[in-house]
Amino acid sequence: MTRIAVVTLDGFNEIDSFVASFMLGRVDRAGWSVAIASPTRQVTSMNGLTVTAQMPLDELPDADAVLVGSGARTREYARDPAFLASLQLDPSRQVIGSQCSGALLLARLGLLDGVPVCTDLLTKPWVIEAGADVVDQPFFASGNVATAGGCLSSPYLAAWTIARLAGVEAARSALFSVAPVGEKDEYVHRGMSHVERHLPVSTAAAPGQR
Amino acid sequence: MTRIAVVTLDGFNEIDSFVASFMLGRVDRAGWSVAIASPTRQVTSMNGLTVTAQMPLDELPDADAVLVGSGARTREYARDPAFLASLQLDPSRQVIGSQCSGALLLARLGLLDGVPVCTDLLTKPWVIEAGADVVDQPFFASGNVATAGGCLSSPYLAAWTIARLAGVEAARSALFSVAPVGEKDEYVHRGMSHVERHLPVSTAAAPGQR
Repeated sequence: MTRIAVVTLDGFNEIDSFVASFMLGRVDRAGWSVAIASPTRQVTSMNGLTVTAQMPLDELPDADAVLVGSGARTREYARDPAFLASLQLDPSRQVIGSQCSGALLLARLGLLDGVPVCTDLLTKPWVIEAGADVVDQPFFASGNVATAGGCLSSPYLAAWTIARLAGVEAARSALFSVAPVGEKDEYVHRGMSHVERHLPVSTAAAPGQR
Repeated sequence: MTRIAVVTLDGFNEIDSFVASFMLGRVDRAGWSVAIASPTRQVTSMNGLTVTAQMPLDELPDADAVLVGSGARTREYARDPAFLASLQLDPSRQVIGSQCSGALLLARLGLLDGVPVCTDLLTKPWVIEAGADVVDQPFFASGNVATAGGCLSSPYLAAWTIARLAGVEAARSALFSVAPVGEKDEYVHRGMSHVERHLPVSTAAAPGQR
């Protein structure tokens, strides 16, 4: 069983949750499941789109990977101790990632101490205020924790997560599948350069996954 | 008033509907609205995500622009005369676009006759069977009708739609906003090269829009 959660909150950014959930959801492996995880049964995006959650937050500890999406209300969530306590994440046994303002939540949880952090341009000052070191690049990962900045860096975060859980060839295939027609090779090359630079040596080289 | 509909059907592809609806939804202009348009009150994606529609299909004739998303069940929809009759589109007064398998629906409606068509690799044989001329590129537009192929060509389709309705600077700004941090200039350049190549001369050159 491989269980992946994409944390999606009220005021969410559709690109930041659904590009990743789509790419992860298309991986064809036995026992592989992907769910939108939310604090309430339904959540509404910053553009008024209402979706039905697929997993409550109290099941996050059971996930093998948790990606935290972005949204217009992340600063409010980041100030709410009860909400932060509901994000039970453990980087010693889970693959964890954030997209754009999701980095603010990971920073508040103490998961980004001492590592370069990627986030979007609007969130950048708040993440710096939370004590993190923001870099001008789309993707960074250190060990089991990754951050991505700018909505369309979400395919890199999704591909890295797939590489960690299903191997680099599955990640390459996922990027190829969503890339624009006529630009696929160039896109996969760019995406995999971000992914492979940030994999533990054992993942990148594992013969069973190539 | 500018009203934009993103047609989203059961079995839909999240990237293909929501990248465009997000980018279009962030355009900051008075009277500008974007809605997910579906045949039923709720639709469920190919990955099991249920969303609540924001517009019924019978309001499509009131839209200034209609983008048709993609999905796992497009071939079924394309064979259903009652469904096809519910897509009341008029390229003489509406901006119309399709993403990936959405091209199959536009082809059945006779909107792609004699023009190069972009679609995804899976849909390509069915679009050819429907009589269209599929090209190996991410985006093409002729007059008021555009097609895009490969999930991540959706920002190009959204940017072209924004350029048509709000001008090229608004399109450039939309691409910049969603581009990966650290890759924004390169991304905007690539996206705008697709958009500007396919604009009517009047749109591209209109001084009020630059």
